[in-house]
This record gives sequence, C-alpha cells and structure tokens, in this order.
Amino acid sequence: MASRGASSSPVERELVRPGDTENLSEPVIAVDCNGADLGPAEVAAGAVIAAKAGARVMLFGPAQEIGELPTGVEVVDAPVSIAKSADPAAAARATPEASIVKAARAVADGRAQALVCAGGTGAALAAGLFNIKRAHGIYRPALAISLPVPKRPVTLLDVGANAEARREHLVQFAFMGAAFAKTVLGVERPRVGLLSNGEEATRGNALIMETHVELAGTGSGGAFEFVGNVEGGDLLEGVADVIVTDGMTGNIALKLMEGVSRTLLGAVRDAAMSSTRAKLGGALLRPALREVRGELDPEGHGGAYLLGLRSLGVVPHGRFTRRGFAQAILRAQRGASEDLVGRTQIALEQAGALRSRVGGSSSALAASLPQAR
Amino acid sequence: MASRGASSSPVERELVRPGDTENLSEPVIAVDCNGADLGPAEVAAGAVIAAKAGARVMLFGPAQEIGELPTGVEVVDAPVSIAKSADPAAAARATPEASIVKAARAVADGRAQALVCAGGTGAALAAGLFNIKRAHGIYRPALAISLPVPKRPVTLLDVGANAEARREHLVQFAFMGAAFAKTVLGVERPRVGLLSNGEEATRGNALIMETHVELAGTGSGGAFEFVGNVEGGDLLEGVADVIVTDGMTGNIALKLMEGVSRTLLGAVRDAAMSSTRAKLGGALLRPALREVRGELDPEGHGGAYLLGLRSLGVVPHGRFTRRGFAQAILRAQRGASEDLVGRTQIALEQAGALRSRVGGSSSALAASLPQAR
Repeated sequence: MASRGASSSPVERELVRPGDTENLSEPVIAVDCNGADLGPAEVAAGAVIAAKAGARVMLFGPAQEIGELPTGVEVVDAPVSIAKSADPAAAARATPEASIVKAARAVADGRAQALVCAGGTGAALAAGLFNIKRAHGIYRPALAISLPVPKRPVTLLDVGANAEARREHLVQFAFMGAAFAKTVLGVERPRVGLLSNGEEATRGNALIMETHVELAGTGSGGAFEFVGNVEGGDLLEGVADVIVTDGMTGNIALKLMEGVSRTLLGAVRDAAMSSTRAKLGGALLRPALREVRGELDPEGHGGAYLLGLRSLGVVPHGRFTRRGFAQAILRAQRGASEDLVGRTQIALEQAGALRSRVGGSSSALAASLPQAR
Repeated sequence: MASRGASSSPVERELVRPGDTENLSEPVIAVDCNGADLGPAEVAAGAVIAAKAGARVMLFGPAQEIGELPTGVEVVDAPVSIAKSADPAAAARATPEASIVKAARAVADGRAQALVCAGGTGAALAAGLFNIKRAHGIYRPALAISLPVPKRPVTLLDVGANAEARREHLVQFAFMGAAFAKTVLGVERPRVGLLSNGEEATRGNALIMETHVELAGTGSGGAFEFVGNVEGGDLLEGVADVIVTDGMTGNIALKLMEGVSRTLLGAVRDAAMSSTRAKLGGALLRPALREVRGELDPEGHGGAYLLGLRSLGVVPHGRFTRRGFAQAILRAQRGASEDLVGRTQIALEQAGALRSRVGGSSSALAASLPQAR
C-alpha cells in the first residue's frame, strides 16, 4: 500500500494503518463534536489530523469554540448538545437542532457517507436509527468494539445496542462483525466465535445453542469461518477474530475487562510505590511498561462501531484525545470507502440471512435504547 | 474470637480466619481426593493441615496412594474417579463406587455434614444433586465464587451451575449468596447487586429488569440490602458484597477476569524481560509484585461454593495445592457449623421466596448440568 509520503507526521503515520490511504479522497465524514471530555476543540484537532491524512470532514459543533480550520474540514455551527441527556432517544427526537441529529441528517441526505459521534453511544444510536435508519433487511443495529488485544485485534459485538437478542439477531451480528473485520481491519477470512460458558456446542443458554446450530449449519457463504463457542477466558487469546454475544453480556464483558485492567495496573503501580527498592525497580521498568500500556491503548482502535445502519457510525470514547478522534474519523472513512455496509448486505443476502419482511418501527426499537453513554 | 493457641503453624494461622475456630469439633467434612492436578496425596496433605486446625475429615480416594494419616482424618478407600469424565452427570449416575458419589452419599446419610470435591464442578454438582439433593424449596443450586478482590471479598453467583435462569432463580440466588457471605465470610449485612449493562433499574434484559423489580419491591426481610444493578466495571470495586447473575453470564465473567489477569500479568512479566534495564527493574520490583499476586491468590478463597443443596459443597480448583484444599475444608466446616443451609432456608421462608410446590426431577435438572469442569 502506498504511504501518503513525506508530508505525514509521526502521529499521522501511526494512525494510518496499511491500506488506510487508498481512495481516501471520496467519502465525507460527518463528525459531532459535542460531548468530548476535553471539549469540541479537541475533536476538531482530531479532525485536522485526519484531514491531513486525507480525510474530508464535516464538523458539527459550536463554531465559536472551534474557530478557523484548514482545508478538508468544513465547520457547521451546531452548538446544541444532547450528549449529557439522561434519555438520548427522547432528546434525539425532540431536538432537531442538536449537533448529533444534524450530523446524522447530513449522512441521511447523502452530504456525508459516515458518522462519527463524540457524544456517546446512546445519542449516536438514537440519532442514527431515526435519521440514517437501519440498512435493508437488518433486524437490529449492533455496537462492535475492537478489543485492545496485543498483536491481533478481536472484534466483540454486540456491546450494548440491544440488551435482549434473538437468534436471528446474533446470526446477523456474525455477518456484520465479519464484514467489519474484513473491510476495516483487513482480516482476510475472519474466524467468528460465539461467547458461551463452554466450548462444546451443547453449552450455553437456549439462545446460544440455537444460534450455534444455525451458524454451524447454514454456512456463511464464505463470509467467515465459524469456530464455535468461545469461553470468557479465550476472549483475549486470539482464537477468533470476531466474537458474537448479546448486548447485555457484551457490555458486562467489555466493562469487566476495563475494570480488571484498571485494578491490576493500579495494583502494580501501588506496588511500585511501596518501598524504596520497589520505587527504584518501578522507575527502571517504566519505559517497558509504557509499551504494555501502549499496546492496550483504546484510542488506537477508534472507539465503538455502530453497525447495521445504512451508513457506518463510529463512537470514539468521550475521554479520547485528538489522536483517538482522528483514528475514529479515518476508520469511518475506511469503512465508507470500502463499502462496509454494501458488503455486509451482499454477504447476508448470499447466506439468506436478511430479514425477509421489513417490519417493526424505529420507535419500538428506540424504546429499548440504552439511556446513557 | 479465640485463637487455637500456640500449636498452630503460620500456614494454619493464615488459613484460619477470625471466627473459623469456633465449634470446629462438630461437623465432619467428606472430601473427594480424586481429580486434583497434583494427585490425591496433595488433597490428603490439605486435609492434614485442616485437621490440625480442628477439622474432622472423611477422605474418599485411593487409600494406597494416600497412606497413613494422623487423627482427625479418616480414609475411605475409593480409587474409582469420574473427575475426567466428559459427561459427569451420566458418570455420577452410573458409577456408585466413584469417590465423589461415595463422598456425597456420606453427606446424604448424615455421616458427614459438608462435601469438598477436588474433581471439578460438573462431578460435584451431579453427585450432589443425585445424592444430597436440593434443599427444601430451592429451585436450582448455584455455584458461587468468592472473587480474589483485594481487601474485601465479592461473592459472584451463579458462575455456571445453570446456563439458563428464571426470575425466581435469581431471587433465590440473592438469598443464597447473602447467607453465604454472612455465615462463611462474616459480612454483617451483605449488600446484594444484580449484574447488568447499566446502573439504572431500566437497564438489562427482561430477566434482569423483572428480577430487579422483585428484589427492590418485596424486600429481603433484613437478610441483605439490595443495592440495585451493578455494571461489569464495578464488579471489583466493592459496591456490593454479593453479585447475582445467571450461570452463563457469571461463567463468562469469571473466566474473562482470569483471562485478563493472566494476559496483563504476562505482559508485565514480558516487559520485565525486554531489556537489561527492565530486567533490573523487574528484579527490584519482584517482592512487591509477589504481594499483589498474593492478594489475588484464589487458593485463599477455597474455591467455588455449591449452594442450594441440603448440605454445603465446596469445589476447590483442581490446580490448587494443599493450602487451597485445606482452606476449602475449613470453609466447608465453617458453613456446616454455622448452619449456612438452615439460615438460608429461614431467610427465604421469611421473605416468602421458597418454592411453594416442590416439583421437577433431579433428572431434568441433570440434563442441563455442565459437562466438564
């Protein structure tokens, strides 16, 4: 793959993965600035980095706080934020002037081809569902996370778009996750696993056993390789590239991983302050430990991915710095330019896994939306 | 609480927690030796340590391998093991001479008052259900784990006895876990939380929302304080003493915690080997890090607890050393002498949460048993 040449800074080079730089000039990414912990200007700074790497960005936020930006980044004044709303679904419906709603409308109207939202998954999901809408034949959107696993990323979905799931939802999640791993992460033939309490096909609750039978039986039409059930302890072991679960279990698993990492690294840090000897050891070990932290860095993965809408959505974490926001925008762009949504549709159609009769309303779906970030 | 005096070794003093030493002379603990990674003799060595701390043990295993043991430990020759069986439920039914079945029968017959099984949860659960049987008014037994959280233990249940759960099961798990935390761990008024994908009462799947309403509404009759939903990230934060979930989610969470710990501590170890400077730092830091490992040591918690039978069962991990087996036996003894099962019954009865019409067969239950350790 061609590098963008000598003009890119080390940060940009780090952010742009092999393959990221092809066809970058086409899609426009609509970015909602509101909701970031460091403020809209930090998101804007991320957009500038992404633009330098070739992205075209439409930035929705308070123009006054953002100021003048270089070519490649268009600012649309949208100071109203629903990022902190206790009920993002109701807020997204009642607040057409909200930055996330305006950004989602830009995608729905075809002015932009993917959405990035710094204001949390609840707002992104609600504004996305109401405006961009579900892709044809998709039952439910899903949130996917690229786990910060050293060496090879593991995509886990759903991590919280739907607390409840049915078999046909999980089957579609397998296709959605595989298409994501293929187009955005460059995994040739993704291995898909099903999260359960044992490796055998007979382990798990009724939902998991039914889904296992379906994924093992019908085949994926070459879209992925189904590797069966995956246990909690194998999540980080690289036994699968995509791991499918319902949104409640996935959300519990994701937050648990973050919690255990925080607790353990905190304990190591405390240990390194517990005596003079330990302090000296800690100081000597620090550079090597920084590399461990770097490998686990969530900003490098761009955030959570909202799959199953007519365009890709990316939800960087609110506490990200400009580096994470830039990566989110570049990943969104890669998803758009590689036609993630179209490829997902084709794979689902070939496997006969599309929803045949499109029913159900966005309102009914919205009732089950997460109420906060 | 009285110490057992000057005769106890440092290991024994470490194992015997405050309160452990009261009324120790009464109950007998039936211990299945087969299935431990280090062999039956290691379990027997644990029994000897426990006996020195006041336990009375009936040891089921290959007498030839175990040899002569001091007073307080009776050896019952039972060389047949079903610990490695692929289908422990079928094996427990078909093999009356198996050590775990003999041990469970001793408890059922009243020759012993609690069961310790080194041969895995599947075998313990099956042999326990068929022989000791469910306690009156209990829908389903549950496996509880005392998480190795620094400072204050957190009890998580169910971690795998039932892959599927109904509301009334989870409600009973709350009482079972609270009674365990109270009698065995000495937590005065346990705080009980419900594992979910958000703190609000409206978060979670239908099962969790229904259970939340029931636990918040009916009250526990003073048996515990219901603190509402607990997120994955809060599992190790001490926001609750007991955390209730279904067996599939609990099993995924438990193994995920073990996996993340293993991955992170491995990464720290690798970092400490990555350069001369890092090696020196690692060597200096090692004693302090050993303490971190010590705090996380699963052997100190005795293993998994099988709750909901007519007597308590404890399932130490197969890879434990004698120290872990001794702790499992002492914990089993504490549960028996403090009448954990009786207290659970009373609390459930007072709250009107006992199963009114006792139905369902052990065979139907056994069909859903985990098939391996």
